[in-house]
Amino acid sequence: MSNAPLKNDLLLRALLREPTPRTPVWFMRQAGRYLPEYREIRARAGSFINLMSTPDLACEVTLQPMNRFPLDAAILFSDILTIPAAMGLGLHFVEGEGPSFERPVRDTAAVGKLGLPDPETELRYVLDTVRLIRRELTGRVPLIGFAGSPWTLACYMVEGGASKEFALVKGLLYREPATLHKLLDLLARSVALYLNAQIAAGAQAVMLFDTWGGVLTSSAYREFSLRYMKDIVDQLKRENEGRRVPVILFTKGGGAWLESMGQSGADALGVDWTQDLSDARRRVGNKVALQGNLDPAALYAPPDRIREEVQKVLDSYGHGPGHIFNLGHGIQISTKPESVAAMVAAVHELSPAYHK
Amino acid sequence: MSNAPLKNDLLLRALLREPTPRTPVWFMRQAGRYLPEYREIRARAGSFINLMSTPDLACEVTLQPMNRFPLDAAILFSDILTIPAAMGLGLHFVEGEGPSFERPVRDTAAVGKLGLPDPETELRYVLDTVRLIRRELTGRVPLIGFAGSPWTLACYMVEGGASKEFALVKGLLYREPATLHKLLDLLARSVALYLNAQIAAGAQAVMLFDTWGGVLTSSAYREFSLRYMKDIVDQLKRENEGRRVPVILFTKGGGAWLESMGQSGADALGVDWTQDLSDARRRVGNKVALQGNLDPAALYAPPDRIREEVQKVLDSYGHGPGHIFNLGHGIQISTKPESVAAMVAAVHELSPAYHK
Repeated sequence: MSNAPLKNDLLLRALLREPTPRTPVWFMRQAGRYLPEYREIRARAGSFINLMSTPDLACEVTLQPMNRFPLDAAILFSDILTIPAAMGLGLHFVEGEGPSFERPVRDTAAVGKLGLPDPETELRYVLDTVRLIRRELTGRVPLIGFAGSPWTLACYMVEGGASKEFALVKGLLYREPATLHKLLDLLARSVALYLNAQIAAGAQAVMLFDTWGGVLTSSAYREFSLRYMKDIVDQLKRENEGRRVPVILFTKGGGAWLESMGQSGADALGVDWTQDLSDARRRVGNKVALQGNLDPAALYAPPDRIREEVQKVLDSYGHGPGHIFNLGHGIQISTKPESVAAMVAAVHELSPAYHK
Repeated sequence: MSNAPLKNDLLLRALLREPTPRTPVWFMRQAGRYLPEYREIRARAGSFINLMSTPDLACEVTLQPMNRFPLDAAILFSDILTIPAAMGLGLHFVEGEGPSFERPVRDTAAVGKLGLPDPETELRYVLDTVRLIRRELTGRVPLIGFAGSPWTLACYMVEGGASKEFALVKGLLYREPATLHKLLDLLARSVALYLNAQIAAGAQAVMLFDTWGGVLTSSAYREFSLRYMKDIVDQLKRENEGRRVPVILFTKGGGAWLESMGQSGADALGVDWTQDLSDARRRVGNKVALQGNLDPAALYAPPDRIREEVQKVLDSYGHGPGHIFNLGHGIQISTKPESVAAMVAAVHELSPAYHK
């Protein structure tokens, strides 16, 4: 059964720097805990893992923000750690503490034991979710698939969970770079297979989340993070249902490296809120589109102040195509849905002036 | 009683961009938990607060790394939250969780109740420590005094402790900027008084730690952090014992804003490890010296690898005066003292070539 034709393709056009009548808008973690309907289904699911690995539930969560706000994209509800989980590291979530692995990977022997997960078997629940979302979306807006970057996955796999100082994974980087390269290479191949499977299942754009690239030095970022993201971009089948599938790279805290990220082959770069979009645009030239970058905390302001902040972001990017409005990082849990509505309305109302 | 004349003034000369025969070296948190002798005295003191507020003990801790490594500066052992503590917020430290305030400051009424602490009475223990350290140092190397930046102090005061998302202080920033400005103005005046008192007591250089400036947008950084650091710099009495007292600004994650930091009137900027010193130097020109920026995690490498990383930092800054070798952030707790020795030795050995 073929999917319904796409009615709103603003996101795909903006990601390819094609003209659009206004700036498309979606935002990171748009399906999540700030929504009461999410908290309700999360409670019903019993656990986060059950919620994200049950296609019916993950599909419902993906669509929740679409039913509240006039967004221009849906993003697959999943977790960035699905690949390490499929590799058998024993993923679990401790309430209030985030993800944790029972069997972290800390030496060459442990890296040697890891296999390449087959997406259609070991990650089938994700692909079934993608297929279901596409069916339920009935062509309203495109669906974005995603994965964690190899470096970011390696951070969690080596540390065994979240970290502040990254002592273990950076210890490996400085002491045994060859071991870390072996792990990153395996992860890059896994992520490429996984994203290609998401594209084959119906993802119309894909995004690589490099949440922890920003903790590296410039030279380590190029060697241990960007290089493997580039490997993935090179391996992606960037076409589906007759359209190009754009690729977005996002390194949080990676503002210093936008020029080299712009030469990775990606179509668009995510920009966090610490950067000026005007600077970013000047630095990357006409090579790539830019996605961002309202400070998520700006959503604590009253609606008229949110509108001003949206205007500042639009102004900072300036006129012409190639901007996708987003937050500079995931929405914060204590954000009010009404504030999100004010942000999305402001983008709809104010952005056409930048596309004349 | 006057202090002994300064025997090693490499730090002071480098901070003022004057020629030196080699690059001076010290590092953030050089007196701290990675040293077994620190853990011993910390256990003896009973609590961190007792340790830092007892001049004899704080002086001993300050001198510990000086007795192990040939460093070119001592830095006052204290806490960045001494001012809010003196304002009566009820500072305490929860083991493994960091600082916490019993009475956080979250509205105009709470800000209105805050007074300006008098350094020579309410913060006398810090000044007594400065005087004692100067006596005990007998002119070996200069002593650096320090304070937290107004924005960084406000983060802790509003959040009530450490934070990941800064929802409360940023909420105030976006909802009630006037209240936040009132708090920041009071803090800027307090910090200026406090640093001037440290200088009068014998501090030979001072550093402002803006640990959380990097969580702001560019425009908010200028308005809520840099502006108040500049106010402080303008108010400092920058001379003592016949020599200029240099001022160092350090905003962690502030790499995007080095140009404007360079125009603050500070003599030197701290640079974190995510920036290339070569880029930083090109961007700030000849206005200010640069301090940094080895990745603290590089100290997990074996000695020969540490030497290579030190060489990279020296190479990145290049030839000529105006570089102070440091880590890009505080040393990590699990670092081996032998690794620090290897770093310091490498700076002594390799840096003269950059000053010919």
